[in-house]
Amino acid sequence: MPTSDICNDPRSIMHGSPPPPAQRVTKKNWDSPPFNRWSFQHVREILPTATVWCGPGPASTLHEAPQDLDGLSLQTGDAQPVTLASFLEESFTDGFLVAHRGAIIYERYLNGMTPHVPHLAQSVSKSITATLAGVLMGRGLIDPDAPVEAYVPEFATCGYNGATVQQCLDMRSGVKFEEVYTDPDSEVGMLDRASGWHPLRAPSDPGNVFECILQLKQARPHGGNFEYRSVETDVLAFCMERATGKRLATLVSEELWQPLGAEEDAYFTVDPAGYALADGGMNATLRDYARFGLMHLDGGKFNDRQIVPASWIADCPYGDHAAFGDAKSEVLPDGAYHNKFWIENTRSRTYMALGVFGQMIYIAPDMEFLAVKFSTWPEFLSDARSAATLRVLHTIRAELTAGG
Amino acid sequence: MPTSDICNDPRSIMHGSPPPPAQRVTKKNWDSPPFNRWSFQHVREILPTATVWCGPGPASTLHEAPQDLDGLSLQTGDAQPVTLASFLEESFTDGFLVAHRGAIIYERYLNGMTPHVPHLAQSVSKSITATLAGVLMGRGLIDPDAPVEAYVPEFATCGYNGATVQQCLDMRSGVKFEEVYTDPDSEVGMLDRASGWHPLRAPSDPGNVFECILQLKQARPHGGNFEYRSVETDVLAFCMERATGKRLATLVSEELWQPLGAEEDAYFTVDPAGYALADGGMNATLRDYARFGLMHLDGGKFNDRQIVPASWIADCPYGDHAAFGDAKSEVLPDGAYHNKFWIENTRSRTYMALGVFGQMIYIAPDMEFLAVKFSTWPEFLSDARSAATLRVLHTIRAELTAGG
Repeated sequence: MPTSDICNDPRSIMHGSPPPPAQRVTKKNWDSPPFNRWSFQHVREILPTATVWCGPGPASTLHEAPQDLDGLSLQTGDAQPVTLASFLEESFTDGFLVAHRGAIIYERYLNGMTPHVPHLAQSVSKSITATLAGVLMGRGLIDPDAPVEAYVPEFATCGYNGATVQQCLDMRSGVKFEEVYTDPDSEVGMLDRASGWHPLRAPSDPGNVFECILQLKQARPHGGNFEYRSVETDVLAFCMERATGKRLATLVSEELWQPLGAEEDAYFTVDPAGYALADGGMNATLRDYARFGLMHLDGGKFNDRQIVPASWIADCPYGDHAAFGDAKSEVLPDGAYHNKFWIENTRSRTYMALGVFGQMIYIAPDMEFLAVKFSTWPEFLSDARSAATLRVLHTIRAELTAGG
Repeated sequence: MPTSDICNDPRSIMHGSPPPPAQRVTKKNWDSPPFNRWSFQHVREILPTATVWCGPGPASTLHEAPQDLDGLSLQTGDAQPVTLASFLEESFTDGFLVAHRGAIIYERYLNGMTPHVPHLAQSVSKSITATLAGVLMGRGLIDPDAPVEAYVPEFATCGYNGATVQQCLDMRSGVKFEEVYTDPDSEVGMLDRASGWHPLRAPSDPGNVFECILQLKQARPHGGNFEYRSVETDVLAFCMERATGKRLATLVSEELWQPLGAEEDAYFTVDPAGYALADGGMNATLRDYARFGLMHLDGGKFNDRQIVPASWIADCPYGDHAAFGDAKSEVLPDGAYHNKFWIENTRSRTYMALGVFGQMIYIAPDMEFLAVKFSTWPEFLSDARSAATLRVLHTIRAELTAGG
C-alpha cells in the first residue's frame, strides 16, 4: 500500500496480523506523517519506555458539565466558518478537552484514541518536567540560582558550565544548540539519535542524552535572550535526578501523577542508558493532562492537596517579553517564555505547554478556562495551524463566558 | 565495575544518573545473569512493549489470611534444612506468594520488587495464551481440531501445514524446532532474534516472528510425542488474532486481565512487526498472576464471573504421560504436558505454568493450594532448583493442611 493510500486511511497503519510491510511503523518512520497518526498513541510499541506509575487508585474525580459544542461556528482563518467538530477533524486531532470553572464541559476522541490511551506529549513534557522542578524548589532540593554543575559536576566540562537552573528553565543559556527538526546535522538531530528516537548515524554519535549534553559548547554569555533549546530540559532533569537520587519517571510519579490522582499510568521513552527523555518523551492520557492543567488553574492545588507551591505556579505567566527575541511572531505577538511554558499574554496571565505536531495544554486562570489538544499534524510546526487553534480557543472561551 | 562485583550487589545494576557503562543493561546483556536481576522487572525499559490494559478499576478483592512462614524449616536437598526466608533469598526470588482455600496466606518481595511492578513471565506467558484459547474455544471462535492453516492460510506453506490447534497447545506437531537456549544456531535462537529480544545476526535472519514461523520445516508426522517448541505458542496466537481480528495484547486484556479485575496493566514485548510475543513476552504483577492462578483453582471462575469454560479448565491436568517422551525426568517422573501447562501429577490434578530462570504458577485444585514464584536464577534451566522448589511447595502445602 503506497504512503498516499495510508494517508487517506490512517486506520490501515499497523492493521493486520502481522501488518503488511508498507503499513508497518518502524523505528525509522514512526515520527513522520502519516505514521505518527498511529505511533503517537503507541510509542511504547516502538521504543523502550519507563512507567510513571499512577498509584494504587482510585483516580481523582473530574467534575463534568457536558455541553455539546460540536456545532459551534468558528472562524479559523480567511475561509468560510467551520464547526468545532469539523475543525477537530481537519486539524488532525486525536483528543480534545475543554474545562471551565473546574468542570469538563467538552471531551472528544478521534483517530482511534480513547480515554485510557496515553498520547505522546512531545515538548509538553518540558512543562511537566519544569513543574516538577517547582515542587523540588519548594522543598529546597533545587535552587533556581545555582549553576547546573552544582548538581552535576560533569557539566562543568561542557557549554553549560555556569548556566543556572533558572536559565535552563527559561531557555536562556548561551549554549549553541540549533533546533532544526528536519536537519539531522543540527544539535537537535544529534539529541534525537542520542535519545534513542532515531538510529545512530555514526560511531561518533553520542549514544545517550548525557553524552550528548557533554558535547555541547557555549556560544555566548549565559542569560541572554530566550532561544528554544530542547536539551535545556534534559540538563534540568539530570540536576533533579542527582539532587534526589531518583530517576525522572519515578519523580514525576511520586510528585505529580500520584498526587494528581491520575487515572492511568503514564510513561517516558528512555535512552540507551535508561534516561527518561524530559524534553519530549512523556506519554499520558488526555484526562491526566487535564488534571495537570486544572492543578495549574487552581494555583497548584488538586485532589484536595497543594501539589506545587502556589508561588511557583503564580509566577509561570510572567515571562520577559523583551527577552522573547526572535520568537516574537504573528502567532504570539505579546508572547514570552518562562518556566518552560509559552505565555500568550502576560496581562491576562494566559500560558501554554506546547509540543510539535500539535500538542497543547492551554491555561487561562483569569477565565478559569483550560483546553487540552493532542494531535498528529502532518508538520512539526505550523504557524497557520497554531494561529487557527488559538482563534478556536478564544471563540470557545468567549462562548462559555457569554453563556454564563 | 566488573561483572563479579555486580553479581555481589545486584542493586548496582542500572544505578546512577546515568549509570556507569559497566552497570548498564543493554539489548545485548539484558537477559543474561546478573543483569536479569534488574531487567526482569524492567523489560519495558529495554524492549518495545504493548499494554495489556487492566481496565478502569477498581481491582478485584484478594482475600488475605496472612501466616508468618518465614521461619518454616525446609529440606530442599541433601544439605541442612533452611528456613523459607533463606530459601527465597538463595533461590533468587523476586516475588513469592502462597494462597490456600481462596486467601493469600504469604506474600514476599525481594530484590527490589514491589506489588505494583510487572515481572517477566517467560514461558508462563504460554499458559496464559493457552487459557485465552480456552475462552475462544468456548465461544466457538477457535476449533481445537482445525488445522492452523484454516486460520492463517500462509501456514500451509511451512512445516505447520496440517498441524491442529490442539497439537500446538500440546506441543505435539512434527515441526523441527531445536530449543537450545544457549545455541544461537538453533531454531529458538532464530526466534529470539525475530522476536526482537536479541539483535539480528545477518540480513537473512527472519525479521519478525511471523516470518520465522514461515521458515520452519516439518520433520515427522504431526501428533507424535510432546517436544518443547516455544514457537508453537506463537502459531496458536496468530490463529487467535486472525480468528478475532484483534491483537494478542488486546485479547488478553479483554478476555482475561479485565475480567480478572487485575490491579495493574500488564504488557507484552512486541517484535518489529508489532506482534506480542505469546511464547514468553508477558509481564504482570505477582498478585495479578495470583488472580489468574486462583481462577484456575476455582474452575475458571473469579471476580464473580465464569471467565474460562469450566470444562476447559477441568481438562488441563489430564495430559498424556505416555507422550511425555524425553521430557520424563527425576523432577517430573509422573509428568505430562497439556494445554501449555506442565502436569506434576495427573492423579492429584496438580499442574504448573513454568518459565526459564525460575518462573512458576503452581496450581493444586484438590488442595485449594496456589503458589506463584517469580525469580531471576543465574541459569535458564536447573533441575536442582526446580526439584528444590517443588519440595518446598510440598512442605508448605503439608504444613497448611496439617495446620488447617
